[in-house]
Order: sequence, then C-alpha cells, then structure tokens
Amino acid sequence: MVSRMRLVCSACSREAPADRPASLCPCGKPFYVEYDLESIRNSWDRAVLNSRAPNLWRYREILPLDAGEEPVSLGEGMTPVILLERLGAGLGLSRLYLKDEAQNPTGTFKARGMSVAVSRARSLGIERFVIPSAGNAAGALAAYAARAGLQVLAVMPADTPRANPMECRIAGARVLLLEGTIADCGRVARVKAREEGWFDMSTLKEPYRVEGKKTMGYELAEQFAWRLPDVILYPTGGGTGLIGMWKAFREMEALGWIDGRRPRMVVVQAAGCAPLVEAFTRGLPAGVEIEHPRTVASGLRVPKALGDFIILDIVRRSGGTALAVTDEELLAAVAELNAEEGLFPCPEGAACWAACKRLAAAGWIRPEETVVLFNTGTGMKYLDVYARRLPGLGLSL
Amino acid sequence: MVSRMRLVCSACSREAPADRPASLCPCGKPFYVEYDLESIRNSWDRAVLNSRAPNLWRYREILPLDAGEEPVSLGEGMTPVILLERLGAGLGLSRLYLKDEAQNPTGTFKARGMSVAVSRARSLGIERFVIPSAGNAAGALAAYAARAGLQVLAVMPADTPRANPMECRIAGARVLLLEGTIADCGRVARVKAREEGWFDMSTLKEPYRVEGKKTMGYELAEQFAWRLPDVILYPTGGGTGLIGMWKAFREMEALGWIDGRRPRMVVVQAAGCAPLVEAFTRGLPAGVEIEHPRTVASGLRVPKALGDFIILDIVRRSGGTALAVTDEELLAAVAELNAEEGLFPCPEGAACWAACKRLAAAGWIRPEETVVLFNTGTGMKYLDVYARRLPGLGLSL
Repeated sequence: MVSRMRLVCSACSREAPADRPASLCPCGKPFYVEYDLESIRNSWDRAVLNSRAPNLWRYREILPLDAGEEPVSLGEGMTPVILLERLGAGLGLSRLYLKDEAQNPTGTFKARGMSVAVSRARSLGIERFVIPSAGNAAGALAAYAARAGLQVLAVMPADTPRANPMECRIAGARVLLLEGTIADCGRVARVKAREEGWFDMSTLKEPYRVEGKKTMGYELAEQFAWRLPDVILYPTGGGTGLIGMWKAFREMEALGWIDGRRPRMVVVQAAGCAPLVEAFTRGLPAGVEIEHPRTVASGLRVPKALGDFIILDIVRRSGGTALAVTDEELLAAVAELNAEEGLFPCPEGAACWAACKRLAAAGWIRPEETVVLFNTGTGMKYLDVYARRLPGLGLSL
Repeated sequence: MVSRMRLVCSACSREAPADRPASLCPCGKPFYVEYDLESIRNSWDRAVLNSRAPNLWRYREILPLDAGEEPVSLGEGMTPVILLERLGAGLGLSRLYLKDEAQNPTGTFKARGMSVAVSRARSLGIERFVIPSAGNAAGALAAYAARAGLQVLAVMPADTPRANPMECRIAGARVLLLEGTIADCGRVARVKAREEGWFDMSTLKEPYRVEGKKTMGYELAEQFAWRLPDVILYPTGGGTGLIGMWKAFREMEALGWIDGRRPRMVVVQAAGCAPLVEAFTRGLPAGVEIEHPRTVASGLRVPKALGDFIILDIVRRSGGTALAVTDEELLAAVAELNAEEGLFPCPEGAACWAACKRLAAAGWIRPEETVVLFNTGTGMKYLDVYARRLPGLGLSL
C-alpha cells in the first residue's frame, strides 16, 4: 500500500517516500501527503459513508492508513454543526453555524491530528514523541500515545492552563514547563529530539497531523450536503486545520465530490499575538515574528507559524481576510455563546464569534450567507482563566 | 400529535395525558412515556437512520417531539463505543467496550436527558426550572435552558466539584450551594418549586429525562448491529440511564428491531454510598437510605434513588448484579483507563472498570462475552478531585 501515497513539499515540490518517518523537507518547509486521487475516485463511492461510524475514519480511503490496518482511535471527528439561531438573528444572519470541536476525545480538535499522526507513526515504528504545545495538542498526543502504548515528552509554556499539564501527566506523559513561548518550547523539543532520539511531533513538522485536521473539511462538505459554506472563521495559531481543510477541498474536487467554489477563509487571531493579521494587512508573504505574545487564548500564542506562507496564500486566494480581536472581546464572546446558545467554548473558539460580529457589522458577511465558526475546544480546560478573567460572573476556583 | 403518547405510572399503571406539564403520579412514583408502538412500527423503517445526523434525535419517531418541531439540541448522543483491547486482554476479554459519554455537549451523559426534557418543557410552555444536582445534571440543564432562553436555579451540595457551579453560572443559571447531600438539595428544590413556581426537573420527577437517556439503549443496539451486548456495567446514582435503556430494549423489541434477549445489567456504586447494592444483596425490593454518603464520585452520592424499585427489578430480571467499589479502586481505575487506553473518565465511569475487573476475576463475566462499560462523563470536571486524590501523579492545581 506504500505506493498509495507520497510526500510532496509544500514550497519546493520536492518528493519523498511516505514509507519511512518524515520531518520537514530539506528546504525547511512542510511536506504534504499526496494520494493517487484518480485511483481513489474510481474505487470509492461516497455513498458508503452513510453506513460508517460517525468518526473521521469514515474517510479512511483518503487517510494514511494501510488496507486492513486499525487506527489508534478514540472516536474522534464527525462533530456537530450547530445552528446559532439566536446569535445569528442578532446580526441578521439566518445561516450562522458553529462546528463544535469540543465534542472530540480530549475535548479539542487536536484529537483529529493526533489520532491520524499517532496511527501513522506506530505503523512506521516510531515509539516516542516530543511535542512543544500551547496545551491541547500535548493533551491529545498524551491520550493517543497512551492508547497505542507509546511515550510522550510534552514541553509547554509555564502559563499554559493547568488542565493541560494535568491531563498529560494522568495519561503517563512526561511534562516540561518552561518560562517562555511555544517557540521557546519548540527549540527545547528540537534539542531533545536530536540528542535523545524523540520523534518531533511539532505542528507541520511531520506530515500526518494535517491529514487528521483536513477531515474537518470533509465533514463540513458532508454535513452541508456537498455544498461548502460561504465563509469559514477559524481561530489560527499554527493553522494546521485551515491548511488541512483547504487541502480537503482540493482533494474532494479531484474526487468529483464538490465543485470549484470555495469558502472565504477568515483567519482569527488575538490582538496580543496576530502575526498573520499583520502580514495579511501589510501584504507580506509570510508572518512577522511576535516577540511577546499576550493573550488568554493560549492556543493563539503562536509567535510565528511554520506554515504562515501557506495560510496567507489560502486566505488571499479564497477572497478571505484576517482580523484580530482583543481579550476583552473574546471573553465577552465566551459569555455570550454560553448565555445565548448554551455552548461553553474555549477562548480561541469564542474569538470567532467576536470576529463574526465585526465582519457582519462591516457588511463583509452578507445576511444570506452560510457562515461556520470553529469552536476548537471545550471551555472546561480554561476554568482557571475564566475564573480570573470573568469576575462579573462571580466565579472562583 | 398529542395522542401519539401518554403517561403511565411505573408503579400503579395509572394513566395521565402527555400534553401538559407532569410530575410524579399521585401515588408518588414516576411516570413513563408510552407511545403507540404498533403505529410507529408500521411507519418507521430503521433503514432511514443511516441518512440521519449522528445525534440522539435520529430516533425522533420514538421521542417526545411533535411533527415538525425542532428540538433544543447541541448535537448530543451517538457517542462512540471504544474497544478496550489492552485492558480487555489483561482480563482475557476480547470484546470489552466503553461507551464514551464524555463526548457529549457539556461533557456528560446528562446532556441527553436535558436536551429531551428541555425540548418537551419548552413545548409545554414551561419557562423556569429548579434542579437539585450532584453537579453534571445542573451543568447540562443550564446549557440547554440557556439555548432555549429559559431560566435555571441549580441547588447543589457545597462539595460538588468546582467545575459544576462554574459552568452553571457562566451559562447564566442561579446557583445555590448547600451543606448537605443531594437529598437535602432535593428538599430545598421542592420548596422553591412550590413557593416560587419553578418547575422541578429532579431525576424521574418529570417523565422526559428518561426519554433522553433511553437513547443510550437505541445507540448500543444500532452500534452493535442490532444484537445487544451480553453485559452492561452502569454507574448508578439516580439510575435514569439504566431505567431508560431497559425501556428502550422493550420498545425496540415491540418495533421488531431486536429479539427478546437482554444484557445482564450491572449496577456499579461506590462503597461509601451503595444503597442499591445493599438492597440487592439483602433481597429488598427498594433501596435503603444512606445517611452519610461518602465518595469522590459525586454523581454516585445519591442516598436513595426515587426509581430504586425499578432499578432493582431490572437488575434481577436481567440476571444482573450490583456491586460497590472503593474510592481507592475507582481512582486507580481512572489512572489505568488513562495510561492504558488514553481515556480520561469521570470517577463514576472509572468505577465500572474497577467493577469489571472483579466480575471477570470471579468468572461472572466470561471471556467470550461482549461487555460494555459506561463512562458517563469527562474527567476534566474533576480536576480538583484528581489533584487531591491522585498524588502519585504529581498533580497540583
């Protein structure tokens, strides 16, 4: 089954085989996994999806899994798309939806990438992983690695919400908390990988987390009856999900499942760490590096994304945009999503609602458009943050 | 559509109409919702399920929803059934599964009952709810009521995990914390209901939460290709889920979907609060009342369940059993489920794994049997408990 896929560099188009552990292309940029789409198109009828379990492995023909191989799975994916009728009405939008990634194993969208990447890594004989993480990625990796019987070393900023190091440790992972940003953690992870032989599971440094994240794009298409929404708002730290969805759209078009229309992709960041917004606004091809990222949305504290040039290209080609919201705006959005719709989002997900309000007010989103916000995780992991920053609600830990 | 269902008392068989708000039967026992199963059998082909979204409303023909009515939904239900290959192998069980209710909205199985009960209450014109709760039920009610634009007063024991009052308050519910048990909270709720006009949403006091919980039984049947498992282990506080699943089995047999075979139903409780285990062991028809319930599994701190006589009857008729595990056993089970399978269960769910080990060791569960453990919620809401009680893991809040 090895010939079913190969790796192709996202920047220089160099190719590499997919049957051994892979990291970045020698040119320093991420690899994509490419499949023989013509052959898949001829052998895979999407009508079979109906009879499959509601998790991301329903798309296994287009995932890096060999025939007959069992994935490392905890039931991830096929999260609901929830109509926000009341909040939408307030903006004059009748088709405003939220894709609730909180309903994944480990409570966040990170489960998708890790289910696929750990499955593939196990198949390639990798036994131990190091990961720099803002929190949720480490939690997900710890869970999937535990399920596969593999080892994890998680390197996180010391100001990560407390739930994250706890979930890692309970799952048996080693945790290193550093004073610094996720970029600093990434440097430590690189050293650990080189000197101690851990496999580096950093965002986009191996090609398979994107493959897991892309299933958000497949699901959106399936859930909207193979007509993509008009606008997608995505909270963008490393941006793997946005990159993955765009890849999914391309694949689905090649499979004959969707037409050439694409959603306008909106990058949502926090005002205290908005390298992509700045690059987008200034017309730069790649992100600037933010020196002191400051936001309660820990998942958005990514000073410079490895795939920034890909993300910016997607946003521009799709006719999308990029905007940053303040912590005050996104915390207010947490409370609104709760009080009006019963959702308990992470701050990153709430940022999309804050951004949506701005874009609708500006007329950038039109009333008849179908809009999807991504809530990337549960608010339950941010109780310490919310207790500190939502004092009006009388919370205390 | 009113004639589609009616209420029938679980104890005295007295009937009542289903088109107005209902509480207990005048005899003091809970009502069941009964449908015209013959008519549903003739008009509902289960083959349509495949084309429906993976949430509990896929069974809407057998739920209390009028034709064309939209439910109050956050995408609850159709949670995954996960094979525990490694833990099962240690016991010689090759078909050991866990149904992971943590992947519901609000992170627990309580979402099911509240989605259905709030939908029905809204339809009947009810606007404000009071609920005594060990924690997760209040969290779920707060979320669904917020989504429906309705009011909630939650009455909880002061030793409830901190996540629960927080999630209630963020969703806009009022919270009353009492020194005492959930039985004491129930008494306060009754007074509030009588004196201030709140509708009492207590377990089994209204007939529709069971309807939501019963969908766990429908899902098990669907997920196991319409052959029920041999053994179900269920962490039993109020027992609504167990009662609901048994009702689902009866309905599905009447619909011609399954045969007459039933799983052996196992009640799992905590040693510090095991009224049903004691009653089962002593051959009593109803539970004793526990004066000072003591267990970290807050959902199992139910001194006397309103439906105890129903639960005991089900356990006996099914050839099941009831057993209690200690807090030490269930905390060890949390760590094992994590480290071996990547799951992060609530203490109540972990209790089922602890109980399973005992039953397998005793030969009560046989190697070839299909066994399902229920993890009723995420461990993420119990971080304060785990930080205190899993010191070996080096956790701290």
